[in-house]
Amino acid sequence: MATKAELTHFFQTDFPQADFLIDSVGEKSATIRKKINQGHLRPGGTVSGPVLMELADAALYVTILSEIGLVAHAVTTNLNINFLRKPSAEKDITAKCTLIKLGKVLAIGEVSIYSGDSPEPVAHAVGTYSIPPVK
Amino acid sequence: MATKAELTHFFQTDFPQADFLIDSVGEKSATIRKKINQGHLRPGGTVSGPVLMELADAALYVTILSEIGLVAHAVTTNLNINFLRKPSAEKDITAKCTLIKLGKVLAIGEVSIYSGDSPEPVAHAVGTYSIPPVK
Amino acid sequence: MATKAELTHFFQTDFPQADFLIDSVGEKSATIRKKINQGHLRPGGTVSGPVLMELADAALYVTILSEIGLVAHAVTTNLNINFLRKPSAEKDITAKCTLIKLGKVLAIGEVSIYSGDSPEPVAHAVGTYSIPPVK
Amino acid sequence: MATKAELTHFFQTDFPQADFLIDSVGEKSATIRKKINQGHLRPGGTVSGPVLMELADAALYVTILSEIGLVAHAVTTNLNINFLRKPSAEKDITAKCTLIKLGKVLAIGEVSIYSGDSPEPVAHAVGTYSIPPVK
Repeated sequence: MATKAELTHFFQTDFPQADFLIDSVGEKSATIRKKINQGHLRPGGTVSGPVLMELADAALYVTILSEIGLVAHAVTTNLNINFLRKPSAEKDITAKCTLIKLGKVLAIGEVSIYSGDSPEPVAHAVGTYSIPPVK
Repeated sequence: MATKAELTHFFQTDFPQADFLIDSVGEKSATIRKKINQGHLRPGGTVSGPVLMELADAALYVTILSEIGLVAHAVTTNLNINFLRKPSAEKDITAKCTLIKLGKVLAIGEVSIYSGDSPEPVAHAVGTYSIPPVK
Repeated sequence: MATKAELTHFFQTDFPQADFLIDSVGEKSATIRKKINQGHLRPGGTVSGPVLMELADAALYVTILSEIGLVAHAVTTNLNINFLRKPSAEKDITAKCTLIKLGKVLAIGEVSIYSGDSPEPVAHAVGTYSIPPVK
Repeated sequence: MATKAELTHFFQTDFPQADFLIDSVGEKSATIRKKINQGHLRPGGTVSGPVLMELADAALYVTILSEIGLVAHAVTTNLNINFLRKPSAEKDITAKCTLIKLGKVLAIGEVSIYSGDSPEPVAHAVGTYSIPPVK
């Protein structure tokens, strides 16, 4: 188990390129947030798909580490994402992840992604991480 | 229909943040390439998953535009990706896309992603783009 | 909009091979149930994967028809399913669907599938239906 | 490794409900075939989606067993399927599977599904099987 403070420290130290904030960590769940700037946009003034994919993947990773601790090198094996609505170019993006299975070998979670305060998700993802055996 | 030269010009002009080269464009297919640098890596010295997702998405987009031309604003509606093997940190990544359906409303393609000259893909994706109606 | 009674009548009349009961219909959601018999099992005494896939697809269809009415001929365009746990061979299977987008052209929903009263899902699916234009 | 004859015998003996023929088995690939009857159709006179999903899943299973032998109890962990075109109600359906990864723990393959002799696939699937450890 890892707390929000421990996870925040871990990403700052070990993943300096990780560009998100951890909003909250709960029971098999976590919410992360990304501030949107010009480099995240695509023509038409909306947040690009890869930015949302990256955030979905990061939300899964944060949630899994919050449960199994900061040691293991879990890696994504599958990610399926549906893009549902056009995010605002001017609002933060938040990704809320809930694990639906946390096994010894595989962890699977779903992620709803929101733009600003809108209750309708802009994207929804389901992803699988492989958890390496403890040595 | 758009040629490799027209597509290359389009991405340089309209998507300046697009960070890939178009290697070839064929019959409902295209191959793009990305040079890997330090910013694309994750701990353990491998290319990060989001870099591969972004390249899969871009390969689909390039291939669809090569068929329908540079006008339409196609957007991704779904992307499913499997991560298969660990890419090298020192080799270019190439993404080869083949469309399996090009309808009036939806285009669907599959993408195999390779690291350097290895014949075994490091990732495989299937994605759907929504093609907006011509006005 | 269609009620539980209207949907039940529709499936009995138009889809006689549909082998499930509609438990409840709510706001952009529905729950259906399937009684498991010997023909639904695979070696090892568990419910076969295709039975769960079929139920996930049916739950999406019921939920979409509950919102758009019984007229349109919606068809599945994509289904992604994760198998999470081994279902019991002796318990009913229920599938709870919630729509995450109901657009004019595409409807997307997620489905959690349960075995008996266990709160942990045995499978989780996300699917997209194409909604044909009203003529 | 298992031959076409060994696989055919295995499915007749251990999976009597499996309703398909094995057309061919090759290097990390196999093709299976299903004869379509009235019970496989849905309103509108086309083969139902679940019939195609079941065949995609079976094609993966046959191909994996052709490589790892008939002993192991491999199970599907993920299946993602896109429905591309309307199959004919009067033609056999064939499913051609190619493995894109055969690891110790996970096997991943893609499946193209055809109706009759048409070269355009009616569906395309990618699936993952978990391979249990040899005891």
